[in-house]
Amino acid sequence: MLDDYHLMYETYGTLNAAKSNAVLVCHALNASHHVAGFYAEDPKNVGWWDNMIGPGKPLDTEKFFVIGVNNLGGCFGSTGPASINRRTGKAYGSSFPMVTVEDWVEAQARLADRLGIERFAAVMGGSLGAMQALQWAIAYPQRIANSIVVAAAPKLSAQNIAFNEVARQAITTDPDFHGGDYYAYNVLPRRGLRLARMIGHITYLSDDAMMEKFGRSLRSGSINFHFDVDFEVESYLRHQGDKFSEYFDANTYLLITRALDYFDPADACGGELARALAPATARFLVVSFTSDWRFAPERSREIVKALLDNRADVCYAEINASHGHDAFLLDDARYMALVRAYFENVAAECCAKKTA
Amino acid sequence: MLDDYHLMYETYGTLNAAKSNAVLVCHALNASHHVAGFYAEDPKNVGWWDNMIGPGKPLDTEKFFVIGVNNLGGCFGSTGPASINRRTGKAYGSSFPMVTVEDWVEAQARLADRLGIERFAAVMGGSLGAMQALQWAIAYPQRIANSIVVAAAPKLSAQNIAFNEVARQAITTDPDFHGGDYYAYNVLPRRGLRLARMIGHITYLSDDAMMEKFGRSLRSGSINFHFDVDFEVESYLRHQGDKFSEYFDANTYLLITRALDYFDPADACGGELARALAPATARFLVVSFTSDWRFAPERSREIVKALLDNRADVCYAEINASHGHDAFLLDDARYMALVRAYFENVAAECCAKKTA
Repeated sequence: MLDDYHLMYETYGTLNAAKSNAVLVCHALNASHHVAGFYAEDPKNVGWWDNMIGPGKPLDTEKFFVIGVNNLGGCFGSTGPASINRRTGKAYGSSFPMVTVEDWVEAQARLADRLGIERFAAVMGGSLGAMQALQWAIAYPQRIANSIVVAAAPKLSAQNIAFNEVARQAITTDPDFHGGDYYAYNVLPRRGLRLARMIGHITYLSDDAMMEKFGRSLRSGSINFHFDVDFEVESYLRHQGDKFSEYFDANTYLLITRALDYFDPADACGGELARALAPATARFLVVSFTSDWRFAPERSREIVKALLDNRADVCYAEINASHGHDAFLLDDARYMALVRAYFENVAAECCAKKTA
Repeated sequence: MLDDYHLMYETYGTLNAAKSNAVLVCHALNASHHVAGFYAEDPKNVGWWDNMIGPGKPLDTEKFFVIGVNNLGGCFGSTGPASINRRTGKAYGSSFPMVTVEDWVEAQARLADRLGIERFAAVMGGSLGAMQALQWAIAYPQRIANSIVVAAAPKLSAQNIAFNEVARQAITTDPDFHGGDYYAYNVLPRRGLRLARMIGHITYLSDDAMMEKFGRSLRSGSINFHFDVDFEVESYLRHQGDKFSEYFDANTYLLITRALDYFDPADACGGELARALAPATARFLVVSFTSDWRFAPERSREIVKALLDNRADVCYAEINASHGHDAFLLDDARYMALVRAYFENVAAECCAKKTA
């Protein structure tokens, strides 16, 4: 239970009079409400899906009113473990409640209420964001016309959970973690968070993509017989880990990975995903990437199969891409053209519509 | 440089008069010289390849004289970082020299000299052990009749190195690591070693095998909304990590993963593996496992291709097995029958042979 909470969000474009052109973009593990564009005072801080979202882009902010929201429990402005609990005057820390994908969708629905948006033209996300797009279609079928589910799985596999668990163990066994209440000690469990990010990063990239990007290239041209950086890939991972541990909150990392682990809409329906998706009335676009081994195409096909079993309206595309899970964030002409074409149909359907 | 060193080894079976029936079994990351059987005083401590090696087993110790050796730098009796440096009276710790696959083969060759074995009937290994079997064929073509290369790669990929690097970072950033000289502080970097083992374990198993073994099974039957163990796979990984961190030396883990990273016999030949393997005159058996994503069948085929380019005598088998990299240690009727048949041929060739 939380007495109250803030949600940090950003909007792009203009909500039309009918309020029928709103698109909610849900973020994955490490991203935020800042989905596109940049701030005048900080031009280098470009939104995480800026190649997808903006004026004239596949999700065209000249047509759509796009909302990015930092999820509850996050560390980019929404209430999370690092926020001050007004009851105690201290950071929530370990007392912050667990959050689930369902909670996030609830909170996003309340945000939509505040903005006067009864029905989204689309809810869209990749990875964990796609799970939210799926949950929207289940929980609020009347409030979502299209669900765009990119690089997703209907639930984590044992291997997925295992990687999350190692990341969490890295954080919680860091001596600076202090049971989650490190804020009071003026330290941060940076070592653990850094390792968590390094592990995560490996799973976002394919073996082929890493081979192409780094191969066995050596930093100094030769092997130095030490445990410092020899290979470029080591330098890259350390840099990613260092950077991440400077800006991300470790408790948020724990919460989000746990929400990922727990998401399993079919569980309440005896494991039958089609039954779980039965309430959905949205149209679906499901996209997967061939080299994604974190959420492989087979996992997306489970979703497609369940939707087809329900005779839902679903487009499915399997993009031949070498970049692994990260492909959902990268430019690929076919992927971009597909999303663009899909949104053109959504625009034709939703944006011109008058209020009922 | 080391002034001297010990190698711990075990032998099984009887060296024949011609000394032509010796088989060297090389270990991978976490194993030892104790490849088969058990000790009278410790019947539960069964050798790591006991299903493969023993009387009447595929590598039949009634025919062959089998040698298991703990590699230089190890922590099971051979000289390693935890050993006392006689010059200082203290553990080597961070001053222990880096060791390579080439060094191990050198040291094993010296052991063979001591045992009076001029030529091995076979050198055999899985994973990192297979790299040693490969290096034997390159470095000592006259001293090895057969090279048995199981679940191998001719060099690590960027992803392989990346996983090793995260494991090493977990160890070296553990506050109890003390730059590798933790022995002097009466502590062990257990947290780091535990994480390293957890990461490793995920890569030894396939996604399918983990799904089959653990699925999303819950320890207590329901989700508890905490960061303690909820899923069986979490319990398994923690247990594996805890156990390992009790008996394995962290510095040895660092050394061995670095030896893995560095091994790349083709590097000195302009990246041409066939040229690197050109000196080899041994017969080869190369075995891979379909679900092994750590060293996938494609990696074994690189070795086979290079051997065929050299018109070497090579048998290759790709075993349809679901257990991932670990499959090389597990019973599989086809795999076992294959190795048995191969060794029957080796026995016919080597064991009956008279001294020249």
